[in-house]
Amino acid sequence: MTSQALKEKLHLIIFGTDTPAGKNFDIFLIVAIILSVVLLMAESMETVVREYYLAFRVLEWIFTLMFTLEYAVRIWCSPKPWQYIRSFYGIVDLLSILPSYISLLVPGANYLLIVRLLRFLRVFRVLKLVRYLSEANTLIRSMMMARRKISVFFLVVLVLATIFGSVMYVVEGPANGFSSIPKSIYWTIVTITTVGYGDIAPQTPLGQLIAAFAMLIGYSIIAVPTGIFTAELAQEIQRNRNSIECIQCHKIGHDSDADHCKYCGSSLYP
Amino acid sequence: MTSQALKEKLHLIIFGTDTPAGKNFDIFLIVAIILSVVLLMAESMETVVREYYLAFRVLEWIFTLMFTLEYAVRIWCSPKPWQYIRSFYGIVDLLSILPSYISLLVPGANYLLIVRLLRFLRVFRVLKLVRYLSEANTLIRSMMMARRKISVFFLVVLVLATIFGSVMYVVEGPANGFSSIPKSIYWTIVTITTVGYGDIAPQTPLGQLIAAFAMLIGYSIIAVPTGIFTAELAQEIQRNRNSIECIQCHKIGHDSDADHCKYCGSSLYP
Amino acid sequence: MTSQALKEKLHLIIFGTDTPAGKNFDIFLIVAIILSVVLLMAESMETVVREYYLAFRVLEWIFTLMFTLEYAVRIWCSPKPWQYIRSFYGIVDLLSILPSYISLLVPGANYLLIVRLLRFLRVFRVLKLVRYLSEANTLIRSMMMARRKISVFFLVVLVLATIFGSVMYVVEGPANGFSSIPKSIYWTIVTITTVGYGDIAPQTPLGQLIAAFAMLIGYSIIAVPTGIFTAELAQEIQRNRNSIECIQCHKIGHDSDADHCKYCGSSLYP
Amino acid sequence: MTSQALKEKLHLIIFGTDTPAGKNFDIFLIVAIILSVVLLMAESMETVVREYYLAFRVLEWIFTLMFTLEYAVRIWCSPKPWQYIRSFYGIVDLLSILPSYISLLVPGANYLLIVRLLRFLRVFRVLKLVRYLSEANTLIRSMMMARRKISVFFLVVLVLATIFGSVMYVVEGPANGFSSIPKSIYWTIVTITTVGYGDIAPQTPLGQLIAAFAMLIGYSIIAVPTGIFTAELAQEIQRNRNSIECIQCHKIGHDSDADHCKYCGSSLYP
Repeated sequence: MTSQALKEKLHLIIFGTDTPAGKNFDIFLIVAIILSVVLLMAESMETVVREYYLAFRVLEWIFTLMFTLEYAVRIWCSPKPWQYIRSFYGIVDLLSILPSYISLLVPGANYLLIVRLLRFLRVFRVLKLVRYLSEANTLIRSMMMARRKISVFFLVVLVLATIFGSVMYVVEGPANGFSSIPKSIYWTIVTITTVGYGDIAPQTPLGQLIAAFAMLIGYSIIAVPTGIFTAELAQEIQRNRNSIECIQCHKIGHDSDADHCKYCGSSLYP
Repeated sequence: MTSQALKEKLHLIIFGTDTPAGKNFDIFLIVAIILSVVLLMAESMETVVREYYLAFRVLEWIFTLMFTLEYAVRIWCSPKPWQYIRSFYGIVDLLSILPSYISLLVPGANYLLIVRLLRFLRVFRVLKLVRYLSEANTLIRSMMMARRKISVFFLVVLVLATIFGSVMYVVEGPANGFSSIPKSIYWTIVTITTVGYGDIAPQTPLGQLIAAFAMLIGYSIIAVPTGIFTAELAQEIQRNRNSIECIQCHKIGHDSDADHCKYCGSSLYP
Repeated sequence: MTSQALKEKLHLIIFGTDTPAGKNFDIFLIVAIILSVVLLMAESMETVVREYYLAFRVLEWIFTLMFTLEYAVRIWCSPKPWQYIRSFYGIVDLLSILPSYISLLVPGANYLLIVRLLRFLRVFRVLKLVRYLSEANTLIRSMMMARRKISVFFLVVLVLATIFGSVMYVVEGPANGFSSIPKSIYWTIVTITTVGYGDIAPQTPLGQLIAAFAMLIGYSIIAVPTGIFTAELAQEIQRNRNSIECIQCHKIGHDSDADHCKYCGSSLYP
Repeated sequence: MTSQALKEKLHLIIFGTDTPAGKNFDIFLIVAIILSVVLLMAESMETVVREYYLAFRVLEWIFTLMFTLEYAVRIWCSPKPWQYIRSFYGIVDLLSILPSYISLLVPGANYLLIVRLLRFLRVFRVLKLVRYLSEANTLIRSMMMARRKISVFFLVVLVLATIFGSVMYVVEGPANGFSSIPKSIYWTIVTITTVGYGDIAPQTPLGQLIAAFAMLIGYSIIAVPTGIFTAELAQEIQRNRNSIECIQCHKIGHDSDADHCKYCGSSLYP
């Protein structure tokens, strides 16, 4: 078998999902990804690790070497290696092996291997969950439409948080836990997002009054991203409905789960 | 009375709600369900139980035996026993007696008797709260329409929570309460859902910066399920309005609480 | 002046808002209500009260006697006393004097005088804030339309909270703060509403897993009332727009703040 | 150069953004604003300040004097000085230098310099982020439309918070942290906005029952501002779409990011 033929065959197996071999490879890959993530989680639990430290390290390196080999083969058998390397999956594939090597120099860095989880998103392609992908696309397109409004909103929230944070720093002061302006800004974000840990809480009456005011603002402006997104999504759904046209009677407005034209009954996807 | 006639009569009383006897039986059942749930709650309060331990155990077994008898009769008098056993109510009826018997082996299991509460949902059928059922159907249909979008959303939230959790585990470490990756993921979910117990809270400036970022993300993406559900519900309500047609002037678009056509005034439900 | 003439004159002053005397009376009343509420708040602050205890009690009784007299006169000068007594304002007027008398028997009951605040709602009528009243009506009508859907939603939330609470009681147990099923249900409501005090928090891994699940459910179903209300409100606003018709060109669809027809320019409210 | 010519030239540089000099001036200004805000944040961190106290004070006064000079020049070279002074930016410009002078009398007041951040909003004008400004306008217009409904909503929330707060003060009392009515109202706002610090939490069963009720109310009425805003925004977006008309085929309904008519393909902005 020539090198070129091998390359093409490997490409079909590794990148394709239509041949049995390609499908098996992808399923094997997904199982390996899940196992390596579970391994990583277990490794972080002290009681588990103490006894099996060596086993954990060995297993982690087996996964890393396996994924490194896979990454090398992917580059080698790509017709346009650079295109793969700079694609979303190419970057994720690299990031999911790098931390192991970095951890040789910086201990603890291996926990960043968790980005391997992003490789799991391939599952959509493999299992032909196209319907889910189309739903995801509707969501993403609505977010794209809404992104400028959301940016304006976030800038306003950050300016608000900085000003409220500084005022609280002046009013409450380091004695009540507001030990610096950045920490007060952190507290303000905790408050206006309605998370409210309570590790820092205003103690003076004036501070509590300002805090109550900040909460009511946060409680109202939570409406803004919801409103933006809902309005855009409603339009996107409407647009989707109108994008499916019956080939018999040429009428539009069919539901996304409709298989037949609701006016003349002929199949929408013959 | 033959066995067959008895079967049919019992079936009418136990499953039906149209005869006085059937209605009385159902009302008696609902009262028994509520009493047994209240009993269970009282049983969990230490101060109450200490003195009346025996009385509580006796009462609980009386209810359990009563419901067991009822379950047996329901199976016996059903024309198609297997259909009842595998139906939603059949499973709930079984689950609401099983824990008592399990508690003979595993102490404490009897608290799972709380699933008896699900039997309470029969109240809708008995009290002819059909209007409420139709409202519930609108809600459920909107959720069904939105389920694929919601699934995509939850997968994204879980991947996000895992990545944020691992980063926080590396940044904060066991010294600040982030004692393992699963616990850090728990913390991340507590944070991005804006619950914020505060039992674990970031202590380092970098950790607080990442936490603030996670909060803002959680605060924004709360918009996503709301947007999805609102958009679907608005369509569902619109569809409901259009599903009622005046039999006189054949116009649609009537409110769900309308009794007369708003165009020609003739009754919509003659 | 005959008793009948006095009655009519008093009725005009007390119930009316069109004469200068009637307006002055209402403004005086609103000031008195606000003062008595502020007094009540100040009274609850220990440091303030200790020195001026007598003054506070005297002032409170002056307000109470004044409002009692007003209530008596309102009944006396009403053409149909019973109608006033059973109206919303009649009940509020009675509730805002009763606690003072009850506090003679039950100490502390006087804090319930805070219901006087509801009398403050008269401000809408007095200041002719009709536009605000019409906005409030739109909101209330949307809520009325949504009330059955919201009821179904709340029943589901309560059943969910009871089941989650019982499971958490079994899993976590009294040792971790879940000391009884009612307290566990309280914790579940604190969690699924995303309030999250943190006074009770799950300690076991299984408890934290179930809690994370409850949070994600709470985080999603917050979408339900929002969606219901938004959908109903959007329809109500649409209906409002269509309810204003230009008397010149008979076209509808004008904004609620429009003064002129946007098609032909003639005044909408001549 | 005459004084008038100088005035005009300075006006072009300081207020204008079209000449290279004007653009450079604005960029220099924005950098200075960001630096002075960062300086202020650093100043609040004790560990940083202790060693460089003098340097911080000197730098802060350099910025303050620089901004004071700029403010004076802006007034001097304005054709209508009073109009500038009373404009939004005029007030912000004054507020961003005043605290330094006040801090000579009242120590700590200099942290209010954080309002300098509002000057940063000029960035929109300078960087020609007009698209963002138009998005911001859509948001602001929706808020204006919704302001009366939001006001009614906030009044209801405040009345609710006062009544719940007073009831909780009576039920829980100072022994459980509810030390006065104002503090109980603060707790109620923390609860119904779902922030939930947990610094004050109900201890008695009755208090927890009322708290659970308050949470469920807060959890539902969060729907109200969201619903109001979403409904208004959806209309505003619809109105925006209809405000762009194709000059070829005169059809409307184009998306805000469309450059060509979607019906005939001719350019929308020739």
